[in-house]
Amino acid sequence: MRSASDDRSTLPIGVFDSGVGGLTVLAALRRRLPQEAMIYLGDTARVPYGPKSPETVASYTGEAVAHLVALGIKLLVVACNTATVHALAALERDHPDLPILGVVEPGAMAAAAGSKSGRIAVIATEGTVRSGAYEAAIGRIRPAATVEARACGLLVALAEEGWAEDAIAEGVLRRYLGPLFERDPHRAPDCLVLGCTHFPLFTPAIRTLFGPWVTLIDSSATVADAAADLLAARGLLRAGAAGVRTIRYLATDAPDRFARIASRFLGEWIAPTIVERVLLPAPSATL
Amino acid sequence: MRSASDDRSTLPIGVFDSGVGGLTVLAALRRRLPQEAMIYLGDTARVPYGPKSPETVASYTGEAVAHLVALGIKLLVVACNTATVHALAALERDHPDLPILGVVEPGAMAAAAGSKSGRIAVIATEGTVRSGAYEAAIGRIRPAATVEARACGLLVALAEEGWAEDAIAEGVLRRYLGPLFERDPHRAPDCLVLGCTHFPLFTPAIRTLFGPWVTLIDSSATVADAAADLLAARGLLRAGAAGVRTIRYLATDAPDRFARIASRFLGEWIAPTIVERVLLPAPSATL
Repeated sequence: MRSASDDRSTLPIGVFDSGVGGLTVLAALRRRLPQEAMIYLGDTARVPYGPKSPETVASYTGEAVAHLVALGIKLLVVACNTATVHALAALERDHPDLPILGVVEPGAMAAAAGSKSGRIAVIATEGTVRSGAYEAAIGRIRPAATVEARACGLLVALAEEGWAEDAIAEGVLRRYLGPLFERDPHRAPDCLVLGCTHFPLFTPAIRTLFGPWVTLIDSSATVADAAADLLAARGLLRAGAAGVRTIRYLATDAPDRFARIASRFLGEWIAPTIVERVLLPAPSATL
Repeated sequence: MRSASDDRSTLPIGVFDSGVGGLTVLAALRRRLPQEAMIYLGDTARVPYGPKSPETVASYTGEAVAHLVALGIKLLVVACNTATVHALAALERDHPDLPILGVVEPGAMAAAAGSKSGRIAVIATEGTVRSGAYEAAIGRIRPAATVEARACGLLVALAEEGWAEDAIAEGVLRRYLGPLFERDPHRAPDCLVLGCTHFPLFTPAIRTLFGPWVTLIDSSATVADAAADLLAARGLLRAGAAGVRTIRYLATDAPDRFARIASRFLGEWIAPTIVERVLLPAPSATL
């Protein structure tokens, strides 16, 4: 006899992001769960979410997740910090039976565990920084930690332009992070949370500038571990060999541009023809 | 007896942009037509338009312009190059009685007149460059001109971050424009079209890098002249003294952020409380 959870285990994992940044999380999920099918949805028509208001981010995220839920998913990963900050609570309310993971809590846990001094820095979008979400999440786990967050909006555009590892990236990083790290070593952070899924691309440049001793927190691996644990606990892990997985890519605009930037983020070629376009809000919802 | 055009002359000019860049055009319109009322609508929820597909840009622009038309305007200025390129034809079809001005044609005319050598460079968003709109428009006016266009997407983010006049801006400009200007003077352009309404903010940095002899084409003044001519020809110029004009600011998201960046673009303080939020697509159009 097959139970409902047996059937659900063959469903894909849904991965949502405002654009292409969440592909760093998709890559970690693929490494950790190679037998799972996945659907990635990037809201490339309305990216970036970082500068938008909490209400708009929650509304756009809700529309995108409703689309993934309608396709059938067994787990939702919100692979975007800004969407996690502004929409996770509403998503949990609207989809009470769907397991949902955001990226802030795993990042906060990794930072609380990874810092020796308890001085933690966070770089993120304007929306994430203004929400104070990382300070709150780290504070719950390690109340004595000090957390300094900096909005680094330009890094998103730099990553999408493919300029994450050169003199311009270093100049931008030095302007954003110099005041944090280039000071008395007894006051500088020893741990930096990459609080936007675009930012792992700057890891080499950050190491060049601020040294190998800073612990960089890229929550994608932590999120992938949490996803594996959650699926196992619910009996939703997919049986079978790794080779059979399928990944679908959905984008709300410009599949060719998505494929080009996705290839850079994933380090492998994504053919423009396999990227499916979806319209949000759904055309059936408008007159 | 008052004719219909007498009544319409008291209506405001509608100025549409994907975000805040069009404020450079609004500023030029205010200088040229100080007695006119104006409504500026920035689609800040869905900015930037530069990387989006032609269909999405046309759809978003259509929704925004329908909102301005419903408020009552006597002239529409599409103060965004990408929207002009992808949506102007559809707007003219959908609003046959409304005078409409885009920014590409005036910029092309100014470039064709302003270049001595006939070697013209254009910097713009990815969408504008891919459309070939400037090459076509300049070619119609001055067929012997050579036009080289470069997509400079990062400049939009730099302008919004307020980093348009320093070493980082110069590094970015040198990377985008160096290959055009740092070569045999007999092959370098003598005229550079700022084909995105954000780009006039880079004028000082461009002059520092590439010298005072390059003619920079900022179409905002040309657009303002065209608006004045068009209103005069239609009998739609507003009578009365300059002091009575009113400017309304509408934004589709985050009025506080709009006000902060608008203050930088206009060089005067815009109070967040006067920026009105409008939702697009209109809530009445969704279930």
